[in-house]
Amino acid sequence: MTLRFAVIGIDHRHVYELTQHLIDAGMECAGWWNVTTNPHVLDGFRKRFPYLPEVAERARLMDDPTITLIVTAAIPSERASLAIEAMRRGKDVLADKPGITTQADLASVRSVVAETGRFFAVVFGERFQSPASARARALVQQGAIGRLVSTTTMAPHRLNRATRPDWFWDARTNGSILVDIGCHQIDAFLHLTGRTDAEIVHAAIRTVAPERTPVTDFQDWGEMILRNDVATGTMQMHWFTPDGLADWGDGRAFIVGTEGYIELRKNLDLAGRDGGQHLFLVTNTKTEHIPCAGVPVATFQAFANDLRDRTQTAMTQEHCFAVCRLALEAEEKATGG
Amino acid sequence: MTLRFAVIGIDHRHVYELTQHLIDAGMECAGWWNVTTNPHVLDGFRKRFPYLPEVAERARLMDDPTITLIVTAAIPSERASLAIEAMRRGKDVLADKPGITTQADLASVRSVVAETGRFFAVVFGERFQSPASARARALVQQGAIGRLVSTTTMAPHRLNRATRPDWFWDARTNGSILVDIGCHQIDAFLHLTGRTDAEIVHAAIRTVAPERTPVTDFQDWGEMILRNDVATGTMQMHWFTPDGLADWGDGRAFIVGTEGYIELRKNLDLAGRDGGQHLFLVTNTKTEHIPCAGVPVATFQAFANDLRDRTQTAMTQEHCFAVCRLALEAEEKATGG
Repeated sequence: MTLRFAVIGIDHRHVYELTQHLIDAGMECAGWWNVTTNPHVLDGFRKRFPYLPEVAERARLMDDPTITLIVTAAIPSERASLAIEAMRRGKDVLADKPGITTQADLASVRSVVAETGRFFAVVFGERFQSPASARARALVQQGAIGRLVSTTTMAPHRLNRATRPDWFWDARTNGSILVDIGCHQIDAFLHLTGRTDAEIVHAAIRTVAPERTPVTDFQDWGEMILRNDVATGTMQMHWFTPDGLADWGDGRAFIVGTEGYIELRKNLDLAGRDGGQHLFLVTNTKTEHIPCAGVPVATFQAFANDLRDRTQTAMTQEHCFAVCRLALEAEEKATGG
Repeated sequence: MTLRFAVIGIDHRHVYELTQHLIDAGMECAGWWNVTTNPHVLDGFRKRFPYLPEVAERARLMDDPTITLIVTAAIPSERASLAIEAMRRGKDVLADKPGITTQADLASVRSVVAETGRFFAVVFGERFQSPASARARALVQQGAIGRLVSTTTMAPHRLNRATRPDWFWDARTNGSILVDIGCHQIDAFLHLTGRTDAEIVHAAIRTVAPERTPVTDFQDWGEMILRNDVATGTMQMHWFTPDGLADWGDGRAFIVGTEGYIELRKNLDLAGRDGGQHLFLVTNTKTEHIPCAGVPVATFQAFANDLRDRTQTAMTQEHCFAVCRLALEAEEKATGG
């Protein structure tokens, strides 16, 4: 039996990828709700998926018993309540990151997951979409760089002021920079260290260049350091990708072990090789470049199987909540709130 | 008149470069004291500089009134007292980094500098020896990347266990990892931000792999975050360069501005271009690779001129002390001492 999903919440363009990946994983899209804060995404969704049923009445999707999964890229601060509504109707939920933007929402989602037995999953980029990150995890697990010492991740993003909806500019609706962007990096750190906890050693948020934004308090720089018994994770995230870069951000990761290290150039190789997903491995015997572009990442397929088999192979529910919790704690630490 | 210098303290191989750079800057080496904790460096110095006078009596150099500068790469914890002795004999001092390893030594050196009017300078790598770093500073000063947002520097070093003298393994004699290696990065951060102060937001030291060292408490990982009114500086330093790397460490810097960013690959370009000192510049109009290898760095020449003219163009005395002070404060913060 083919599992069916519906899309409710097309406020961020990430919804394109979520939808396509689930279709590629063998699921059927039963329809999508065409109400949004972001007309660019409405146009883009229609253009990319002209064959998918467009639905004006949200309840038709929410109440359809043949739909087992709700996918959402709604306004971040509204994803949790949408997820709760869906789970109470017997549906699993796959949310664009950040899935959860407040501790109260995290507690509510946790309790509804426990009450309903449904899954609440968030698409973290390193895990679901980066073949170079997947290869790095495999190398670390094989002991290619000895014991893990540290990870350092840099996540620059292009501001794209002209096409951003209002909610993008407000930490209350976007979830704050440490939660919105940082959750990818927290997921990657926990995943690589094989843990579901870490101490937040340091967290800071800055507003550096308010002249570039329609508000005076947009968080354009964030940084965190996490530490657990395995490694230290330094994370940077910001909105300063210049227009002369060929992609939306020059995402990097440096993974240091006792016997070697790995560098990832996820988006592109500056003034160098074509494309993205470049991995560099240095061990005690060699230095090599391992191209990973085009290598399939199995996570969406594993997630689709999990929905059917009620397993948690793509990501455990506990891990997902741990990422959300740590991101919120980091934000609290940074803002003193 | 050619200024003359003498070398007292050949306990670290950095002394080769200091000596050669001063000769290249037009100074004359009057002699060097051949007592050391490190026989490898004694052999290496004789091999590199067979024409320089080798002296067995330290006092002959210290008391020679024709010698105006004492250069030292002695055991780090002994450099300050050596410098004080030299300054009291009317000589300027150029020390390998770290020049100063305790707050008490810093206070003493400060007061002797004030008392004697001599210079106490420390060779920080980015400033004295890296053409890519010099180019980056020029680009930042020209506004090529807008206003400065952040710097991130990574300084991996190869352990080379077999050839290290005893003092290398003890934080009391090597000065601790944040002081020994971190001072380069603090200098670079202050230099780039044009400030002589910063808040130490975070500092940590770890002993990750004691199985690799003759002691159980060798500091093999250090990290700091500094912040001032201009930018945030994240700094990492460690001893985990694997043998399969073609150089002693893959030193990097990422300099982010509001309108662009710079990446430096100082030692080498992983599995890529030949040599080191690679600069990558991304602005709002382009992405480019700027090779800087072989470009002269004017700092040693400026320092030699400063000795003659009593100016402070290579580095101000206040800046040098600020770097030493911040490194020591970071170490205190990290160790709770």
